[in-house]
Amino acid sequence: MSWHISSKALDQDQLLVDESLFAQGNGYLGIRGNFEEGYAADMTTIRGAYLNAFHDVVPIEYGEKLFGFPDTQQKLVNNIDVQSIRIIIDGDDFSLFQGEILDFERFLYMKDGYSERRIHWKSPAGKEVSIHFYRMISFTDKELFVQWIDIEPISQVQEIEIVSTVDGDVSNFVEASDPRVASGHAKRLHVTDVQDKGPYMQVSDETEVSKLKVSATTWVSASREALKESRSSFEGKVEERRTFSGEGSLRYEKRSVYTDTYRHESSPSEAGFELAKRLSAVSLDELIRGQRAYLNRFWQTSDIRIAGDDKLQEGIRFNLYQLLQSVGKEPTSNISAKGLSGEGYEGHYFWDTEIYMYPPFLMTDPEIAKNLLLHRFSLLDAARERAKEMGHRQGALFPWRTISGGECSAFFPAGSAQYHISADIAYSFIQYYLTTGDEVFLADYGAELLVETARLWIDTGHMKDGRFRIDDVTGPDEYTCIVNNNYYTNSMAKHNLEWAVKAMALVEERHPTVYKNLAARLAVTDDELKAFREASESMYYPYSDSHRIHAQDDTFLNKQVWDIEGTPKEEFPLLLHYHPLTLYRYQVCKQADTVLSHFLLEDEADEETIRRSYDYYEQVTTHDSSLSFCVFSIMAAKLGYEKKAYEYFSETARLDLDNTHKNTKDGLHMANMGGTWLALVSGFGGMRVKETGLHFAPRLPEAWDSLSFQIQYQGRVIALDIGRDKTVYTLTEGDVINMYHHGKLFTLTEQQTLLHA
Amino acid sequence: MSWHISSKALDQDQLLVDESLFAQGNGYLGIRGNFEEGYAADMTTIRGAYLNAFHDVVPIEYGEKLFGFPDTQQKLVNNIDVQSIRIIIDGDDFSLFQGEILDFERFLYMKDGYSERRIHWKSPAGKEVSIHFYRMISFTDKELFVQWIDIEPISQVQEIEIVSTVDGDVSNFVEASDPRVASGHAKRLHVTDVQDKGPYMQVSDETEVSKLKVSATTWVSASREALKESRSSFEGKVEERRTFSGEGSLRYEKRSVYTDTYRHESSPSEAGFELAKRLSAVSLDELIRGQRAYLNRFWQTSDIRIAGDDKLQEGIRFNLYQLLQSVGKEPTSNISAKGLSGEGYEGHYFWDTEIYMYPPFLMTDPEIAKNLLLHRFSLLDAARERAKEMGHRQGALFPWRTISGGECSAFFPAGSAQYHISADIAYSFIQYYLTTGDEVFLADYGAELLVETARLWIDTGHMKDGRFRIDDVTGPDEYTCIVNNNYYTNSMAKHNLEWAVKAMALVEERHPTVYKNLAARLAVTDDELKAFREASESMYYPYSDSHRIHAQDDTFLNKQVWDIEGTPKEEFPLLLHYHPLTLYRYQVCKQADTVLSHFLLEDEADEETIRRSYDYYEQVTTHDSSLSFCVFSIMAAKLGYEKKAYEYFSETARLDLDNTHKNTKDGLHMANMGGTWLALVSGFGGMRVKETGLHFAPRLPEAWDSLSFQIQYQGRVIALDIGRDKTVYTLTEGDVINMYHHGKLFTLTEQQTLLHA
Repeated sequence: MSWHISSKALDQDQLLVDESLFAQGNGYLGIRGNFEEGYAADMTTIRGAYLNAFHDVVPIEYGEKLFGFPDTQQKLVNNIDVQSIRIIIDGDDFSLFQGEILDFERFLYMKDGYSERRIHWKSPAGKEVSIHFYRMISFTDKELFVQWIDIEPISQVQEIEIVSTVDGDVSNFVEASDPRVASGHAKRLHVTDVQDKGPYMQVSDETEVSKLKVSATTWVSASREALKESRSSFEGKVEERRTFSGEGSLRYEKRSVYTDTYRHESSPSEAGFELAKRLSAVSLDELIRGQRAYLNRFWQTSDIRIAGDDKLQEGIRFNLYQLLQSVGKEPTSNISAKGLSGEGYEGHYFWDTEIYMYPPFLMTDPEIAKNLLLHRFSLLDAARERAKEMGHRQGALFPWRTISGGECSAFFPAGSAQYHISADIAYSFIQYYLTTGDEVFLADYGAELLVETARLWIDTGHMKDGRFRIDDVTGPDEYTCIVNNNYYTNSMAKHNLEWAVKAMALVEERHPTVYKNLAARLAVTDDELKAFREASESMYYPYSDSHRIHAQDDTFLNKQVWDIEGTPKEEFPLLLHYHPLTLYRYQVCKQADTVLSHFLLEDEADEETIRRSYDYYEQVTTHDSSLSFCVFSIMAAKLGYEKKAYEYFSETARLDLDNTHKNTKDGLHMANMGGTWLALVSGFGGMRVKETGLHFAPRLPEAWDSLSFQIQYQGRVIALDIGRDKTVYTLTEGDVINMYHHGKLFTLTEQQTLLHA
Repeated sequence: MSWHISSKALDQDQLLVDESLFAQGNGYLGIRGNFEEGYAADMTTIRGAYLNAFHDVVPIEYGEKLFGFPDTQQKLVNNIDVQSIRIIIDGDDFSLFQGEILDFERFLYMKDGYSERRIHWKSPAGKEVSIHFYRMISFTDKELFVQWIDIEPISQVQEIEIVSTVDGDVSNFVEASDPRVASGHAKRLHVTDVQDKGPYMQVSDETEVSKLKVSATTWVSASREALKESRSSFEGKVEERRTFSGEGSLRYEKRSVYTDTYRHESSPSEAGFELAKRLSAVSLDELIRGQRAYLNRFWQTSDIRIAGDDKLQEGIRFNLYQLLQSVGKEPTSNISAKGLSGEGYEGHYFWDTEIYMYPPFLMTDPEIAKNLLLHRFSLLDAARERAKEMGHRQGALFPWRTISGGECSAFFPAGSAQYHISADIAYSFIQYYLTTGDEVFLADYGAELLVETARLWIDTGHMKDGRFRIDDVTGPDEYTCIVNNNYYTNSMAKHNLEWAVKAMALVEERHPTVYKNLAARLAVTDDELKAFREASESMYYPYSDSHRIHAQDDTFLNKQVWDIEGTPKEEFPLLLHYHPLTLYRYQVCKQADTVLSHFLLEDEADEETIRRSYDYYEQVTTHDSSLSFCVFSIMAAKLGYEKKAYEYFSETARLDLDNTHKNTKDGLHMANMGGTWLALVSGFGGMRVKETGLHFAPRLPEAWDSLSFQIQYQGRVIALDIGRDKTVYTLTEGDVINMYHHGKLFTLTEQQTLLHA
């Protein structure tokens, strides 16, 4: 149970959602769960194939363009379409929108890594067939997409004709009314070449401006000889047509490989043919076995099991699986806000990576986490440039949204102004060091990134009356923009500054030669490090004496409180119904802001302050962002608000499966999926990774019988089995370790059972 | 002296500037000072004719469009071109960019209301001619544009051919790099009809989206019979060609009338022919005399004379003259930021009208002032709509920039967020009442506008701890956006609220029937008026105990101070060199903000606070806006900073003549021109109109021998002749009046001489 999802939907709205839910991918290639044969002519589909980071550059239009507004943005390109397969049963085109559907259901198998569509269909002419479509994107051969179809005639069938196409004439999806979806510049890819070479059909495209090249190479095979076979190419499209006798069962297989400039630099076209040749020799069985083996390893390290709620268990696994499908596994790419499941947010990378999606990889597969860091590091020079463009004399300012390093935000108050992303990235480097203990990585990458981001804070903030203040930035809460001394930003900047000093000290002590070169190259002086320390130590936090909480910013608590209760349900999310200025004028939060800082940096405030803060901000938060629930779940768990912790968690686990945010059609909410993991491990598990070591504070929701997971920490693998009153810690790999259970140090040698509180 | 401006420039840059400086207009029609014959082929010109308020609707593009962002904006349309006249001297086209220029100078005569271009030219073939071009836009027949040319052959000339065209195929000017100029949507007018009817040639156009119609009807005449005469029409263009013998002097005359949907509703085309017929019968002499008579009256009421500085005197008169040329004299139009002299800011009306350009009309020609108020009043319903769109439950929010009432701002932080415009408009209605004593206008228009704007403040602000606060608005200073409790906004809102109550009380007392209807129609209750009073009385002003000044907003004084001295000169205006977010982060003002409130509402703070405030804000103000100098001049005069008052004033008087802001090519800085008047009358004259009456506090700058002007006040005309130590007040018209001289009440019966302090 709970190792697959399924759907029988054929209505327009749910089909679009299912395209995202049944999307498959491997972090390089992603293909939406479209139907091979398409829908009815008047229906909408977002037919999409995406290569992570494969983008074009499009102009940004402004009614009024001010200095420093980016001229262009990057845009994930909807790639060459290899999905299409037409099946013609005695002259009738198979479609789920004509003839009679005697049975239909689709499945995504998360242990096997492929999907299935089971259909029992009667054609308009009355011919009955059973058709099973399978599709799989390989985790072991990242370029490979395999489709196979089992056709079983039930009534008498004369002929089955199958037409496979590769279509290079593709466009992105457009929707004018939603700021979260692109509204123009749809046609980005242009066909440069169509080749028909032995068994292989290949279409090559190039993006309009960025001049990235991509080739899709396809070949088909079948379990029986065809009666007729032909090939033809049209404008930007190549097609293969086979006619089989209608007698007996038939397996038809179509394989495609995507090769591109980023990963097959010399020649995507040649690389495509070579790969096709190599992969032609591998049997389908072998491929399926390889996929299962890969996923077996994944679930061994990453599965989280709850006993007592199958629906939630399904949601948890689905989210973990989609994270794996979305994450770039090489330093050329990252994780888009929608993974590779749709075009929402144009395939951009946000802080979502560092704060929401990176932690599960860090704790279960540090190699993937390291790649994510390397990708950010590769954008450091661009961030230095962006800082200059924004008038800074020093430092690195990471773009709010980007693919290849340039700022892609067209609305700076809720975009570029979110300076905290630079501290968030710094935070992920610090967490990496604390979790892996990898000093070499710190010396080679981390220290430099920490120094450059620390420099940004020095240049952005200023010392006044002995306190270091940071004015005019936007915190995570996008309903309150351009504020002074946002608590989240200031606390994260403080951490960033503190760790720039620590990292340099650490590198100096352990790797003096590296230090010397680094300090020289970056021109770091003792005075500068002293300034970092001073800024960090005297960081200003706005505090309300009457509420005894940290204010979200200097003036947040002086504003009117939005009447959330009195706002009609259909007016949420507020951003689609109110002008931003109206929202800014009220105490109303789109998402966790101060409360998020209390999670990431819990030692910056005492528990009672954190409790009051949670109680206060919860009242003014709409959770219009999918990045909010998990944080409130984690903090509710910490504070002993068990019921709330559970309720918020429930919102995360099935947010996409139940389409609660109503826009899953544009792609999955990847940050929320990371949030599910966080809510389980850092929320109910109470995990924190700090300088003092590894902390857990497990508490089991009443509804469950147990919660089990494992994490990696400094070369060890530690499994937790959390029960009602006690937790069993098992050291599955690695050396004895001292760690914390509900604040108490203990030594884990092999296995240890500890009571809760 | 000082009754004209002149120029000999023929270089590209100055020619573009001269096109604005020599622009002519009458508030309805404006035509730039282009050359009839054009420039050399490779040169740039902004060839323009504009009808006030005649606009099209164009889409606004956004990279990221949020709720409430306007979809479209209005755009003043570059109108049908009637200027062109080619003169061919024995086969050579006359041009100032070929042949030999033996003499050239152009003039704008401000007493006569026409311009002249004097040329002595030798053609490439060596033919010498004297050519004088004249052009005049009639103040008495607003549709009429007259051009006449005197040609005098100096060497032997065989033939003079003259070609006049009317061209309906026109476009707006485009410049992508400057946010203050439009960057697209240039082609808005399309030719619908071309007629050749008796002596008249007519081209009719229509705007693309707003479907406004315009016709230009042109006819020509000459002092001598032509040898040949012909007419032809091309695409959207009609042309008349006459050939004259080269012997003796020749006067050639071209007249055109512009008629449009707004002013000639039934049929602009028919109205054009009728007007042409009527105006054909009027001799040129008569037209010139009529123009002079009109201007004579204007200068009698509006001239400001300084003795001792001809350059400044020239600047003052030029600015007054351009104000007259720009102001709409009927309730369908207002004054654009650039008047009718160019396309900068797309012909939009801003708060510039109420705070900078309206006061001179109010004090010299109240009928024009009243029209400006009626125009705003006509947009009240649109302002109510806009308030709703911005999430308000009540009130009227005037758009930051508009022509026909819809918000045209595409960047809300420095646009729609400037809520103060609603209070500024209210202020102008209050000033009108105080200056004219017109109770009927208050009852019919003023009270309603004051109530609706007061309602906006009630809905925007909120009471907290007994103080009324207004969060998240932008004050006049666009280098500090989206702030809480902007002193300027709060003080103007307070005034607005207070006067809504006063106006209603006044109307109730004097016009009880009108009051009853009004109160019923607007559903005004006593409770509501009480709430207005309470909000007004408890208005919160941020105040700094350490600086002992009002802070520009809640947190302005906590920010870093921008190093204005250390910023290279070429980096001004800062907005063209720094991202807005960077500017927001610093104490740096584009223009007067708190200091402006200290001028408009001087009794809200005591003089020493105002002095400290001036001293402080002056240090952090760049005057990157042309709306700044005059305010600092006025306040410097008030505070006795005589030298500064004079220096700031000098910047205003010749800002366009000397092109000190480097963008006069896009049109004249009309608000600054109003500012010149303000600096003279409210600055050196110390004039304030208050509930207590009319105040003057004259002080003469050391450089001058005297300053004289007159104003209208409650049915009186009062002339001031300010000398070194004393001022002579003369009551030229109207009843005895009690008024204030340097704070002391005195009674003016006929003439009175009072010493300065």
